[in-house]
Amino acid sequence: MRLSALTTDPFALPAHGGDLGLAEARFGKPAQGWLDLSTGISPFAYPVPELPQELWQRLPSAADDLALRGAAATAYGVDDPDFIAAAPGSQALLQILPRLRPFSQVAVIGPTYGEYSRCWSMAGHHVLPMETLDRTLDADVVVVCNPNNPDGRRHDPARLAELADAMAARGGLLVVDEAFADAMPELSLASHARPGLVVLRSLGKFFGLAGLRLGFAIAEPQMARLLRQAIGPWAVGGAVAEIGRRALMDVDWIAAARKRLTQESATLNSLLGRAQLSTVGGTSLFTLVNAPRAWALFEYLGQQGILARPFSTAPRWLRFGLPPDDAARQRLESALAGWS
Amino acid sequence: MRLSALTTDPFALPAHGGDLGLAEARFGKPAQGWLDLSTGISPFAYPVPELPQELWQRLPSAADDLALRGAAATAYGVDDPDFIAAAPGSQALLQILPRLRPFSQVAVIGPTYGEYSRCWSMAGHHVLPMETLDRTLDADVVVVCNPNNPDGRRHDPARLAELADAMAARGGLLVVDEAFADAMPELSLASHARPGLVVLRSLGKFFGLAGLRLGFAIAEPQMARLLRQAIGPWAVGGAVAEIGRRALMDVDWIAAARKRLTQESATLNSLLGRAQLSTVGGTSLFTLVNAPRAWALFEYLGQQGILARPFSTAPRWLRFGLPPDDAARQRLESALAGWS
Repeated sequence: MRLSALTTDPFALPAHGGDLGLAEARFGKPAQGWLDLSTGISPFAYPVPELPQELWQRLPSAADDLALRGAAATAYGVDDPDFIAAAPGSQALLQILPRLRPFSQVAVIGPTYGEYSRCWSMAGHHVLPMETLDRTLDADVVVVCNPNNPDGRRHDPARLAELADAMAARGGLLVVDEAFADAMPELSLASHARPGLVVLRSLGKFFGLAGLRLGFAIAEPQMARLLRQAIGPWAVGGAVAEIGRRALMDVDWIAAARKRLTQESATLNSLLGRAQLSTVGGTSLFTLVNAPRAWALFEYLGQQGILARPFSTAPRWLRFGLPPDDAARQRLESALAGWS
Repeated sequence: MRLSALTTDPFALPAHGGDLGLAEARFGKPAQGWLDLSTGISPFAYPVPELPQELWQRLPSAADDLALRGAAATAYGVDDPDFIAAAPGSQALLQILPRLRPFSQVAVIGPTYGEYSRCWSMAGHHVLPMETLDRTLDADVVVVCNPNNPDGRRHDPARLAELADAMAARGGLLVVDEAFADAMPELSLASHARPGLVVLRSLGKFFGLAGLRLGFAIAEPQMARLLRQAIGPWAVGGAVAEIGRRALMDVDWIAAARKRLTQESATLNSLLGRAQLSTVGGTSLFTLVNAPRAWALFEYLGQQGILARPFSTAPRWLRFGLPPDDAARQRLESALAGWS
């Protein structure tokens, strides 16, 4: 089977969560099916409507693009599509941003999502891993995830706005990935676009539509236009744009999802607490725990078809996404009860 | 209305076909609805099946990517997914290829699709427009569309293979865009992957799924891997990959579509002949005609809700895509009969 060739080292920890094929190559196929808790993708996804065939057939039009960016502008509080660039996933934006700058010193506030360092390094920049924002003023670019993945650390948006202004004053750039901010609008800088600031959002996590591949940059019109040019024409198909547009405009669904995720997250945290796992932090979409033998716990759970997210650089960390229902919670609780 | 701001010059010819919003900003909304003949997208599209919600929700997996690339490898005759890179539209590949090379002299065989020159120029290369393949050996990169858009010119694949070998021998690259080759497999170099050659294919034209945004590069494994790395992870969503996989594997549909397009194209050509429009060339998906006042004819047809494709650099050219049915053909024929 060719897939096994993709797992070059069967003992290596996965670089990302959410790939059950790779999990199966490692653990075999679980009799009960997988309980995938390895991502921060909401299991309570926005329901994708049936779509007119026409959206698959014709090229996305300027009007489609404008309607999608208009919905994003409204949802993210900038009220003007000129501030928005849409892309096939915020990953595409992570890859484009490094190409828009000359050689830069790039402070990545971590530990955090690995793609920031990877994308800036691959593009030839010098990445400076940093733990806090305190010493970032020597950097040309600062990348921060707010709230942070995987530890849920929050950064004060007022302080980030000040940093963006300071960066802008010397031609620098602050990139704030708000992949997990939908449930915490009070943290978001999206509606505070200003020179030197690029905010990233996506439909992948809160809306549970990671397979949609739709992300946005919110930035001053000049930067947003640069990003749109770099993304190029027709990057987001018509069906994807229409699903995204509907989801972003569905304020009732968004309000209900925020409420539900808060409840589900509290339930998960109680469950993890009863299993004597101490919480490092989290968002309403995932919880990071500190466990003395986290990698062994990952293996133990994996053998039972429960996929958590370990981190190769943090042997005591394990991240859990939200269980989708009572049966899943009971399955996780039983498994954790058998761990010692 | 903001959309009008997108047509910076209402008298400028459209840069691409297929955008009815822009057509409407120019001509108003036609009472009978639009008859869009401005693209080479088949009006007889592959039927998109209803898809499991799960494909919209989870991240596309390594197995999804492999299944899609496997289907493409089979369909394009290389039988090994290592030769395939999948991208969100072949436009994305057009944009990536220039970034993989140091400063190059790039021969673009034209007149042809404008994005080749635009993408290589934007990336800082020097583009040399050329009319034939005869003097391309001074170039580092040659870009050719086979069959060519918009004039349908064919290039002998044996000669292109020789050129690829000659380019490879001095570190050069031949890019063959086969966007319109699905109906003419005898022209394709896809199954003849070799150093120095990148072949581009897509689901947009023959399969009629331009809104899907799915394209492929077929190249030697080392080059295909470079392209996959540049495209980055999760670039093609699960729903899109599944639609593409099914379409590429559907050999009965493909055979029937080839037959149908040949017939429909012959019918279109007869119609254009009866209107005294002389054919420059074409493929089974479009016909290019030579008309003394082609831009005026474009305007005349546009006023009647029939959108053809003019070319700003060729005032005598007008391209027609396939009418979808008898009513559309009659509408076109009546309109052309009133033109003098």
